[in-house]
Amino acid sequence: MGMHHLDRETTAVVHIGEDDLPALARGCAVLGTGGGGSVETGLLLAGRAVRECGPVDVVQLDDLDDDAVVLPLSGIGAPTVSHEMVASSDDVLRLRDEVERVMGRPVAAVMSSEIGGSNGVSPVAWAARLGVPLVDADGMGRAFPEVQMVAMYVAGLPVNAVVLSDVVGNVSTLRPIDGLWSERLARALCVASGAHALMADYILTATEARGAVIVGSVTRALGIGRCTVGAPDPLSALVAELGARKLVNGKIVDIERRTGGGFVRGSVVLEGVGDDRGRLLRVEIQNENLLALEDGEVLASVPDLITVVDTQTGGAISTESLRYGQRVSVLAWPCDPLWRTPRGLEVAGPAAFGYEIEYVPVEEVARVHA
Amino acid sequence: MGMHHLDRETTAVVHIGEDDLPALARGCAVLGTGGGGSVETGLLLAGRAVRECGPVDVVQLDDLDDDAVVLPLSGIGAPTVSHEMVASSDDVLRLRDEVERVMGRPVAAVMSSEIGGSNGVSPVAWAARLGVPLVDADGMGRAFPEVQMVAMYVAGLPVNAVVLSDVVGNVSTLRPIDGLWSERLARALCVASGAHALMADYILTATEARGAVIVGSVTRALGIGRCTVGAPDPLSALVAELGARKLVNGKIVDIERRTGGGFVRGSVVLEGVGDDRGRLLRVEIQNENLLALEDGEVLASVPDLITVVDTQTGGAISTESLRYGQRVSVLAWPCDPLWRTPRGLEVAGPAAFGYEIEYVPVEEVARVHA
Repeated sequence: MGMHHLDRETTAVVHIGEDDLPALARGCAVLGTGGGGSVETGLLLAGRAVRECGPVDVVQLDDLDDDAVVLPLSGIGAPTVSHEMVASSDDVLRLRDEVERVMGRPVAAVMSSEIGGSNGVSPVAWAARLGVPLVDADGMGRAFPEVQMVAMYVAGLPVNAVVLSDVVGNVSTLRPIDGLWSERLARALCVASGAHALMADYILTATEARGAVIVGSVTRALGIGRCTVGAPDPLSALVAELGARKLVNGKIVDIERRTGGGFVRGSVVLEGVGDDRGRLLRVEIQNENLLALEDGEVLASVPDLITVVDTQTGGAISTESLRYGQRVSVLAWPCDPLWRTPRGLEVAGPAAFGYEIEYVPVEEVARVHA
Repeated sequence: MGMHHLDRETTAVVHIGEDDLPALARGCAVLGTGGGGSVETGLLLAGRAVRECGPVDVVQLDDLDDDAVVLPLSGIGAPTVSHEMVASSDDVLRLRDEVERVMGRPVAAVMSSEIGGSNGVSPVAWAARLGVPLVDADGMGRAFPEVQMVAMYVAGLPVNAVVLSDVVGNVSTLRPIDGLWSERLARALCVASGAHALMADYILTATEARGAVIVGSVTRALGIGRCTVGAPDPLSALVAELGARKLVNGKIVDIERRTGGGFVRGSVVLEGVGDDRGRLLRVEIQNENLLALEDGEVLASVPDLITVVDTQTGGAISTESLRYGQRVSVLAWPCDPLWRTPRGLEVAGPAAFGYEIEYVPVEEVARVHA
């Protein structure tokens, strides 16, 4: 995945039209590792925007001028689609206007702050509305539950300005002293605005973005979403596309979930079926799937990606949609190398989620088990 | 009071040093009509700032260039002085920096958003820290409990940007769609920041300020604060300085107060003493003194000013400091003509506080009773 920025020749001219959105959404759901919000919200917003404004060009960072302003966007707060949200398309225009005031320069491109889940699909809508391309990159390469868990933070970029725009028409610019205050103030405004807002965080130039974002994310999501279409064995196609290890084929025999403080926490237990009969695998959850354990041993852990998919279709199942008796497979694959640096692991490794275990890259664990 | 902008020749060169602060505070307390927060907070901040940075020049709007940026400032949230608040002097510097970024021009002067109470005194501290003069004007000519009750709103100026700065170091710029959202979002940030923040609202140029602010407020407050010093009869001196009607000399026989939603609401009943023996006067309160009633008849009402003072010293008594048995006098005097326009009465007349009475200027009521 970290290599995808070398694939420019093959991905240089990509457009996302209405027909591409279902594949993008499927890919973003897989990269959501169980979280990131339902992709249905993003699909609705993006479908309508693309129909009204036309397809969106996907560009590489190198296609942009060095000082071009890249606008990383995400929706924060309750991700439920409301009539107002879908009806409103002005929030992103107002946000853009404010960012251009703050930066003193035009916005050249939109970037997804989080490619996993709904926030990976909605940026197509925002780019379409603004008439600018979408950068083939994002801030996570997946979904993460906390706002400071972004590549730009790992890379040490300053928070600078956080700009929020709500459906009412209010626009706010925060200059928080750190990521913690960024989260706290943005959340307070979001709640005051009615629990949902559009946010630009770590606004940066193309030069600043190089090395500080995860590249290739959009084409990666599209590739993942397309690989299962018409495939005789969608699951195998998905495993191959992801370069993933299939940890287990099983059925869900136990789910424990509790919601609080904006997080879904819990675990799910799978009993192996077929060749995996007799195995028991547990997945630990905090919005996203964090750990996969078997007999007390860690098979995979954050920041590597763990996704639960439908064994038949290869479609990702979000942590909120897990149900007793579902036939599922658990896939795990390597995260972007940025997350494996000491700083990356500090921000989003097992310890950042309260697990006192040493991180072992999923492919090394796999080798032991093979 | 509305005439004070004609007095320029006599008030053109005014400086506020440490020795002037007690008089300013006394005057601001009188103009606070019972509210506006304890002037002690402002006195502490201003005393320290003037000792460290020197006295502050008071200037008239006409002394400023037409496009000079005037910064209306107030503290919002719990007005209690904390160690951090007094220790911090950087919040206003950060706020100024942000305003200059937003406006693209330097801040030329500070203005009090609200001359009544603590927010009338603290601007001396802020002007001293910034090394700019204090404009002899304010946004209310008194204190009012709600943020939209400012002259700039009555005059129809757009809200534009609201900039907040907290002691932690966070700086935020809000562009709310109206005064209601301004209040809502600023309050949310204020609470998230620990219940106190410094706020710049209705940032405007000297040209925009003309006709849209209450002029003469600072020299007015100084004059009020000085008139009782060494006077053989402080109360009479105060009545003369204010051009007020003394509604009653009495003692407090009943107080009803309840606190909720950030407001103190209630009423106080005074029994006449001396020549006023046998009279009963009730003052209705919502942070500020709103109405003075006798036998069901309105003697004075917002937006005219009603202040309860100590009968002996002429010192203003805030609504929170009213106590059973206190010997007090109730004074009422005309508000600035801006508040008597149809739009002014809509914003801050009796109906704006839920009283279904017709506003009658205090001097007309007085004439009937004379």
